[in-house]
Amino acid sequence: MPDAKTWPTAITKIDPNSVRVRGYDIAELMGNVSFGAIVHLILRGELPSPEVGRLMDAMVVAAIDHGATPPSALAARTVASTGAPLSASVAAGIASINRHHGGAIENCARTLAEVVEEADTGEPMDDAAAEVVNRYRTQKRRIAGFGHRIHSADPRTARLFELAREAGAFGRHCEAAAGIERALAAAGKTLPINVDGAMGAVLADLDFEPEVMNGLFMIARTSGLVAHVREEQTRMKPMRRIEPSQFAYDGPPPRSL
Amino acid sequence: MPDAKTWPTAITKIDPNSVRVRGYDIAELMGNVSFGAIVHLILRGELPSPEVGRLMDAMVVAAIDHGATPPSALAARTVASTGAPLSASVAAGIASINRHHGGAIENCARTLAEVVEEADTGEPMDDAAAEVVNRYRTQKRRIAGFGHRIHSADPRTARLFELAREAGAFGRHCEAAAGIERALAAAGKTLPINVDGAMGAVLADLDFEPEVMNGLFMIARTSGLVAHVREEQTRMKPMRRIEPSQFAYDGPPPRSL
Amino acid sequence: MPDAKTWPTAITKIDPNSVRVRGYDIAELMGNVSFGAIVHLILRGELPSPEVGRLMDAMVVAAIDHGATPPSALAARTVASTGAPLSASVAAGIASINRHHGGAIENCARTLAEVVEEADTGEPMDDAAAEVVNRYRTQKRRIAGFGHRIHSADPRTARLFELAREAGAFGRHCEAAAGIERALAAAGKTLPINVDGAMGAVLADLDFEPEVMNGLFMIARTSGLVAHVREEQTRMKPMRRIEPSQFAYDGPPPRSL
Amino acid sequence: MPDAKTWPTAITKIDPNSVRVRGYDIAELMGNVSFGAIVHLILRGELPSPEVGRLMDAMVVAAIDHGATPPSALAARTVASTGAPLSASVAAGIASINRHHGGAIENCARTLAEVVEEADTGEPMDDAAAEVVNRYRTQKRRIAGFGHRIHSADPRTARLFELAREAGAFGRHCEAAAGIERALAAAGKTLPINVDGAMGAVLADLDFEPEVMNGLFMIARTSGLVAHVREEQTRMKPMRRIEPSQFAYDGPPPRSL
Repeated sequence: MPDAKTWPTAITKIDPNSVRVRGYDIAELMGNVSFGAIVHLILRGELPSPEVGRLMDAMVVAAIDHGATPPSALAARTVASTGAPLSASVAAGIASINRHHGGAIENCARTLAEVVEEADTGEPMDDAAAEVVNRYRTQKRRIAGFGHRIHSADPRTARLFELAREAGAFGRHCEAAAGIERALAAAGKTLPINVDGAMGAVLADLDFEPEVMNGLFMIARTSGLVAHVREEQTRMKPMRRIEPSQFAYDGPPPRSL
Repeated sequence: MPDAKTWPTAITKIDPNSVRVRGYDIAELMGNVSFGAIVHLILRGELPSPEVGRLMDAMVVAAIDHGATPPSALAARTVASTGAPLSASVAAGIASINRHHGGAIENCARTLAEVVEEADTGEPMDDAAAEVVNRYRTQKRRIAGFGHRIHSADPRTARLFELAREAGAFGRHCEAAAGIERALAAAGKTLPINVDGAMGAVLADLDFEPEVMNGLFMIARTSGLVAHVREEQTRMKPMRRIEPSQFAYDGPPPRSL
Repeated sequence: MPDAKTWPTAITKIDPNSVRVRGYDIAELMGNVSFGAIVHLILRGELPSPEVGRLMDAMVVAAIDHGATPPSALAARTVASTGAPLSASVAAGIASINRHHGGAIENCARTLAEVVEEADTGEPMDDAAAEVVNRYRTQKRRIAGFGHRIHSADPRTARLFELAREAGAFGRHCEAAAGIERALAAAGKTLPINVDGAMGAVLADLDFEPEVMNGLFMIARTSGLVAHVREEQTRMKPMRRIEPSQFAYDGPPPRSL
Repeated sequence: MPDAKTWPTAITKIDPNSVRVRGYDIAELMGNVSFGAIVHLILRGELPSPEVGRLMDAMVVAAIDHGATPPSALAARTVASTGAPLSASVAAGIASINRHHGGAIENCARTLAEVVEEADTGEPMDDAAAEVVNRYRTQKRRIAGFGHRIHSADPRTARLFELAREAGAFGRHCEAAAGIERALAAAGKTLPINVDGAMGAVLADLDFEPEVMNGLFMIARTSGLVAHVREEQTRMKPMRRIEPSQFAYDGPPPRSL
């Protein structure tokens, strides 16, 4: 235990020729455990089952990039276009991941927790969901994580729930999400859960605290941000006016594994 | 092809109910391809072999965290201690990944490229390495990626080269690294390649451009930064004086898979 | 008025050979109006009286730097020590100005507004202050802006109130601050208002909204951050361990105007 | 002098009830010395003459804002639109001040130093300027600080040189700037020095090192960034698409002091 003058940290222990994350030697983890499993380890303290590790990987992949329009990509490109280094440019992108960008993961998880809490008193899940939907409507609050500007039936969402079922991780929060979808439909609104909402549901069922969920989004999106900044640095002129809707994709055509 | 008024991007194409990275549907990648392989895809444009994918995973795991002393962890914790949100705190950590922190990956890769270039003229690799070592000594320049403040025989380095061999990715730059080790030893200096240097060698053999290598370090380290910021927010008092050397590890004891 | 497709901005209008801030030609402001007055102009929309302009200057000067220990200076130096450019380093310092660092200005102003609101119902100011002090004690909340780790009678505070009186800007919020000091003393606590609290009081009397007050602190502190980063870049070795309490001042001895 | 275990800082000394910048008590500076003079003090170590102080103020005012199109304003607004706090949003704007944005100040100063260096060998200034212009043309390099996308005769530039003359600070670098204008004109190019170039010339004549010049731009522009972020937070919807050229000014009409 740390003495009075030191401050504690429980993440990584460094010794000569040894780097251990939450007790595990990184050299042993390398090549043996998936990245997603190690993200679970470093954030939650324990390695998950391989199936949950695969589910974690799937979430990090699901959020890896969403093209040129999200504010994180635009902020990173704008900073890069001034001659900033890669790190400062990516940092501006990370600083853009907040309540309105990525935050639906956390906010949806909080709403699902309200539904689960009600259902835990014995109420059927669908009734609990209908009550929460009603409460939000009365308070004129939007439920985060349902509906999407572009996607009505996002295949990433379906895939995520499929992997959650395979991992035995489709729990009460995922059921609550389905309950909210039905309650919204009963109220005449077709607002299927989106990929952010699905991540919130799955992460809540994996017992992640809401405050760290946006962190998972950052972990995922850093790859996309690095790619956008490098593209800006190598293909575009400095100080160009970056019109957020006037881009055109010129990469590889659709292809399959 | 984009017309005159649009700007091009080749990373991700968004269509209703479709998100494709470099042509591949993300929903298809989820659960089927490792995170490391997709990092390769988004940065290089193509999916690697599964073995190289595993090697990429190993590199992202190798650099995931290095405890409380690196400036990225200290900058992120310092910003967090003022009440900043997770995103701004992690961003300060990312902004700390530059020439002197993480940069050894890129700088080592550049030196190895000098050795390989010389060797490509027909010279034996060890002679080329000795020449480059000599040139640096004459110019009083340090060779990045060799020697370490704490680790003399880092097991992560050995593991990385092992996985590179298994993936058929132990190429000319990895050989050049061995050549430099021998040339340094011949000059009386025991400076084994460190994990940064090894990443530089492997990434160069995988044809990554040096400018993006620090990006891989950012992709890896974001997980560690999220963990450090959450620990600061949950275990420490705001505005504490963060003494960089007065911490004590109080996490799980050593354990194996 | 902007049409449907445009977005509005009321700060600065650019025309060929003309840059006008809130309507005034910058070239006319240059050399004729003090910086503090123009900060008032750009944040509030109007030029103040010369006396209030001088008061604004004094606040920007009061907060220009506080040595090597504040987290903004340490974050900026930590990022700089990795080889980051001036801009990214200063940005990390700015990102550190939040609730717990600089935030006392805004938080004190909010508390003073509570006192003033009570007093506006006809109650004597000292009674209103005593009530608010009592309420905070009952709720176990600290009142921001009173007391200081280092300074018990900060001459900057006295000077600021003096200039506020000269400018005719010592109003209800400044009186409320004096009332809180007396109420705290009556409760046995010697907690004089500190310079942050005094800035909050004066800015509130100048009708600044609390949300922008930390912005004034950023405007002031950027100068100090630039100085710290340049000192780090020119006098210190990269990647040094920055012990926050082990510095020593070696600048000019005390001197007077 | 600091002992072996401490690190030195020559900026600000904090003692109980005393804050001294470069030796001067801040309380004494408040209300007696202009902000620009104190910026000179903190960056250069000495208070300037009142006239040079006024010139410093004029430079900080000249660069305080340039409307909605600069990347610093767009980056700050983009980050703000995601729900980031004021500090993280302003930080993204500061991180955008680099070689291609603000950097003309420093880059012009470097070019002017080349001209002055040549002239110091005894050559007439105009010949030295012509030689440097010629050298840049041969190397196909642009000379920073001359010509402007929008302004052909920027009144801020004229005003700055006027104030420099009044302060006795119109020196060799300012003369070199005039020489370059003439040399460009002789080569058939009408590229008058712009406000960035003029700041570079004046700052060089005041003996500022080029590396800190962008810092002065940051000190100036922070005010504009705070104003832009507050406007974004109060007038615009979160997560709007920020089209960089589709804004319209709706602030006060032109007015005079």
